[in-house]
Amino acid sequence: MKLVRFGAPGQEKPGLIDQDGKLRDLSALISDIDSTLLGGAGLQQLKSLDPASLPVVNGEQRFGKPVATVGKCICVGLNYADHAAESGMEVPSEPVLFAKATSSLQGSTDVVILPPGSEKSDWEVELAVVIGKEAKNVSEADAMDHVAGLSVMNDLSERAYQIEREGQWMKGKGCDTFGPMGPYLVTTDESGDGDNRKIWLEVNGKRMQDGNTNTMVYKVPFLVSYISQFMSLQPGDVISTGTPPGVGLGFNPPIYLKEGDVMRLGIEGLGEQQQVVKL
Amino acid sequence: MKLVRFGAPGQEKPGLIDQDGKLRDLSALISDIDSTLLGGAGLQQLKSLDPASLPVVNGEQRFGKPVATVGKCICVGLNYADHAAESGMEVPSEPVLFAKATSSLQGSTDVVILPPGSEKSDWEVELAVVIGKEAKNVSEADAMDHVAGLSVMNDLSERAYQIEREGQWMKGKGCDTFGPMGPYLVTTDESGDGDNRKIWLEVNGKRMQDGNTNTMVYKVPFLVSYISQFMSLQPGDVISTGTPPGVGLGFNPPIYLKEGDVMRLGIEGLGEQQQVVKL
Repeated sequence: MKLVRFGAPGQEKPGLIDQDGKLRDLSALISDIDSTLLGGAGLQQLKSLDPASLPVVNGEQRFGKPVATVGKCICVGLNYADHAAESGMEVPSEPVLFAKATSSLQGSTDVVILPPGSEKSDWEVELAVVIGKEAKNVSEADAMDHVAGLSVMNDLSERAYQIEREGQWMKGKGCDTFGPMGPYLVTTDESGDGDNRKIWLEVNGKRMQDGNTNTMVYKVPFLVSYISQFMSLQPGDVISTGTPPGVGLGFNPPIYLKEGDVMRLGIEGLGEQQQVVKL
Repeated sequence: MKLVRFGAPGQEKPGLIDQDGKLRDLSALISDIDSTLLGGAGLQQLKSLDPASLPVVNGEQRFGKPVATVGKCICVGLNYADHAAESGMEVPSEPVLFAKATSSLQGSTDVVILPPGSEKSDWEVELAVVIGKEAKNVSEADAMDHVAGLSVMNDLSERAYQIEREGQWMKGKGCDTFGPMGPYLVTTDESGDGDNRKIWLEVNGKRMQDGNTNTMVYKVPFLVSYISQFMSLQPGDVISTGTPPGVGLGFNPPIYLKEGDVMRLGIEGLGEQQQVVKL
């Protein structure tokens, strides 16, 4: 099931995309795609619906971030071996974790605004995991029972803020508009655990990242289990699982985002994003 | 004005502490101490109230964290020169920032539970700043206009998770129960900017931290301005501003928390906390 939040920023309604790609309105049944829905029985009830019984929404729609209430967003660093190499860093012996400010999250086609004076803003397509049932010290075998679904994240990063400003990485990850998420929350009955999916990103039509989630060092069930040893994960929390090679920092000389650039990115089965860069 | 949230976990009501130290019930006037109140006109309206007109709440009460909705909690590392020295680190040339999981925040007298197998859990008394009006690229001169008030934080830290587990620090800062906050949100008309306040922490009656906020390297107005250059701050967001010397890590050999320990901590004018440590 592909869940969406459609409409103007701050006024999104819940919906789903049916098998024919039509947007169907869920707002008569649920108030939002949020922690209450994801942590309760509501998600299971939605799965038993006949989408054809829901009103069709016509016309082009903006999609907001697919989860209204993200309590925290935990990111995994250097989780593709080739990306670690291009960043001049070793693959860590266990996952590196840092936070992305939840205030940076936005819809999948919303404009990305560079911070004032930014010269090193960069892209990172990532597989995002949305928590369903609370996870606390869960095993890898049980981890997927705590996942509501998967999504696409562009983990935008200001490299000077991230690396050159006394630390820690969160400084370069939480700028407003630096977390386009969606378009969908694809529930796990449809998405599985996200392994073996093509993952790619283009800037101005040129393919920059062209990877596959099967080269992730630490996979989704391991990551959910691992993070839940350090802190509990609540419904609606997001884990962004790291990026494959091809970020701007990895080029020689590096290539960074500038006004007017257009990013297009996606993950096989999870949909596509597009953002225009502005000052 | 000292605002509190009193009652059982998850069922807290808003209240205030009057000049005589009596708890007064605000629940007939406002629904909670939350981002809606802090970001709107409600806080100003409360200040014009006569506390004597509010019902007194008798009997001992638990206080929950003084802000119901904390969107993000940003912590400042190594912000007292002496603490940096005891940690074997240099005072950074600009503030070090990391995140504390909002799921770790709790009331000021709630039990602190060590993570399974933890051997290096440590205390850190800190001055906490609660954002009122949204702050985005604000100047140091204007920063305090964006602060609702101040509070006390015990920024508990599992040092092995923080330092020995491939990074980043957030791993050791976000364990459940590792963020006792309160007892009060002291609004800025009463608290000022928090400078020149005694700040202290005792373990089992022994004074371990005994500092003053006037030795902070970066003060509150600077920190609000600084952080707002990297990410916008929303009503209810918290900044924890670093700890003075005397943490367990700084002793030789280090001293860490164990079952049954009792922490008592406070900041002049902002109230006291007490927590029992359990497994």
